[in-house]
Amino acid sequence: PLAAPAIAQEAPTIRWRLTSGFPRSLDTIYGAAETFADHVKAMSGGKIEIQVFPAGEIVPTPQAAEAVATNTVEMAHTCSYYYWGKDPTFALGTAVPFGLNARLMNGWLYQGGGNDMLNAFYAKQNLYGIAGGNTGVQMGGWWRKEITSAEDLKGVKMRIAGIAGKVMEKLGVVPQQIPGGDIYPSLERGTIDAAEWIGPYDDQKLGFNKVAPYYYYPGFWEGGPTIHFFINLDKWNELPEDYKAIMINAGAYANTDMMARYDTLNPGALKSLIAGGAKLKPFPQDVLEAAFAASHEVYDEISASNADFKQIWDSMKAYRGEGYLWYQVAEYSFDTFQIRNRTKG
Amino acid sequence: PLAAPAIAQEAPTIRWRLTSGFPRSLDTIYGAAETFADHVKAMSGGKIEIQVFPAGEIVPTPQAAEAVATNTVEMAHTCSYYYWGKDPTFALGTAVPFGLNARLMNGWLYQGGGNDMLNAFYAKQNLYGIAGGNTGVQMGGWWRKEITSAEDLKGVKMRIAGIAGKVMEKLGVVPQQIPGGDIYPSLERGTIDAAEWIGPYDDQKLGFNKVAPYYYYPGFWEGGPTIHFFINLDKWNELPEDYKAIMINAGAYANTDMMARYDTLNPGALKSLIAGGAKLKPFPQDVLEAAFAASHEVYDEISASNADFKQIWDSMKAYRGEGYLWYQVAEYSFDTFQIRNRTKG
Repeated sequence: PLAAPAIAQEAPTIRWRLTSGFPRSLDTIYGAAETFADHVKAMSGGKIEIQVFPAGEIVPTPQAAEAVATNTVEMAHTCSYYYWGKDPTFALGTAVPFGLNARLMNGWLYQGGGNDMLNAFYAKQNLYGIAGGNTGVQMGGWWRKEITSAEDLKGVKMRIAGIAGKVMEKLGVVPQQIPGGDIYPSLERGTIDAAEWIGPYDDQKLGFNKVAPYYYYPGFWEGGPTIHFFINLDKWNELPEDYKAIMINAGAYANTDMMARYDTLNPGALKSLIAGGAKLKPFPQDVLEAAFAASHEVYDEISASNADFKQIWDSMKAYRGEGYLWYQVAEYSFDTFQIRNRTKG
Repeated sequence: PLAAPAIAQEAPTIRWRLTSGFPRSLDTIYGAAETFADHVKAMSGGKIEIQVFPAGEIVPTPQAAEAVATNTVEMAHTCSYYYWGKDPTFALGTAVPFGLNARLMNGWLYQGGGNDMLNAFYAKQNLYGIAGGNTGVQMGGWWRKEITSAEDLKGVKMRIAGIAGKVMEKLGVVPQQIPGGDIYPSLERGTIDAAEWIGPYDDQKLGFNKVAPYYYYPGFWEGGPTIHFFINLDKWNELPEDYKAIMINAGAYANTDMMARYDTLNPGALKSLIAGGAKLKPFPQDVLEAAFAASHEVYDEISASNADFKQIWDSMKAYRGEGYLWYQVAEYSFDTFQIRNRTKG
């Protein structure tokens, strides 16, 4: 069965640089780009080499999409929603408030037309996108004071960006955009009252529990954030078909593997944070209801003037309605039982 | 950047046959093997060709693992738990009652040591396994009569196999093993009282709602059933490293893509089934409690005399306890809200 082929093919050698939107210290997310590069190299027998650089080493995260579009760097691994200022449609590639959970996001991307619709939009930006990682539902961040109702949100200075910031603004929050490294001192000094980050494993490293102990859930603005590999569209188009297939499949591996890392690492981190004084609290129901209403106001506002956003959000919203119709039956009832019994047996 | 390599490599040509454990009519599961074959072919530039055969065309499903182990056929795409009669440890590769949901199954497989532990066991069977598909939580099957408590299970003749059958037996059910094609007439004649199959999309094709209208959930014996690609271990070991990597990544793609197909197709099928008379019912809580206790009795019994089973089940059980500790916080609370609001906005 291991017969030599009639003609030995000459496969081109590719040396690309990838700028991660994340520092090395966020090892789960940063690591997904390394996993992708390792797998692509292994599958191509070493012919495709992608060198991964941490955020800022060659390109700062806010410029990563533009740097790929202009071929300053061939690839990035970053959140599409970081570039929503250029066009809010970018936000839909990652997550929007009350969007899809990780499982339904994959359903929509792979089989619900999501990947194709996003790539039709990304093509206008001279990008090709491959889903390559998910964090699952994130936490609702660290708060210096307890929130007992939507009233308590008024005047809260919160580090939160993007469409989520616009939604929170409608609830009276004053969104603040500050870099990750400045969050801790800002919370400590009281310059800000709250900050959202990711989830237990990543949050633990920054020690927010010491300065803002109320740890709210769920991070309703990030139900299943997808991290994307972005490739310069001209570079993508000139790849041989087998190399394209290799990258698409490596993306699928990285996508699942990053979620698996979070699910494996978050439980221990959550226990440590609670032992370290974090007070775990669900957002009050009226906060969720008010945020849900505000979110859809924002979507309607953007949709009124942005056809790409409207088309893709309408598709995602329809998938949410159908997806949860099924998800609520077997999946949710199984989880409900398992959660109550998780330590028994 | 597209420089020719110094030496053109000669990559071997591989022609393998894959026997699916499923008929073509189960297009989501059967289709995952075709997706795998298509992706492997594309990534290898046509050098790896895997021909997919439906169940029974070259090997009947109950013999698929053995046929791969003895190299009658190089590969299969089937459920590991079909072969639990040879060794109950096989069951853990797919699903056991009250095991892991699809998300945590991937967490355990990819990052919790699951893939490595399973492959240490499969190696003893001369097999190499790659996870390649998931159905998500299945339904609890079709019942001719309503079940109002665990008492009602006594004497029920149910089509259910494997460890799930052993568990149900402890609750007084009389497990029946009958082929898929015989389920409908058996339910119609009343030869059996209940039958489990998969979920809405697959169940709809068989029309069980017409003869056994009570459609129970969740299928607690299948929280996140993984379908495996099995490869003859000697064939696997002689593959070049790049071909191994290609198959592992194609497996990851098929794994996510099959789940995405189910999540996309199940909602419409569920609505049609309900319109066609299916009566959707949750299992009574005491049925779940009794089945949970019975399941762990079975695991203890098997573990007492089977070290492989014990080691792998202990790992999976520990992952369940930790995994749901985190899952219940952000993920579950987000889903709870989304389910209530899925059609709003």
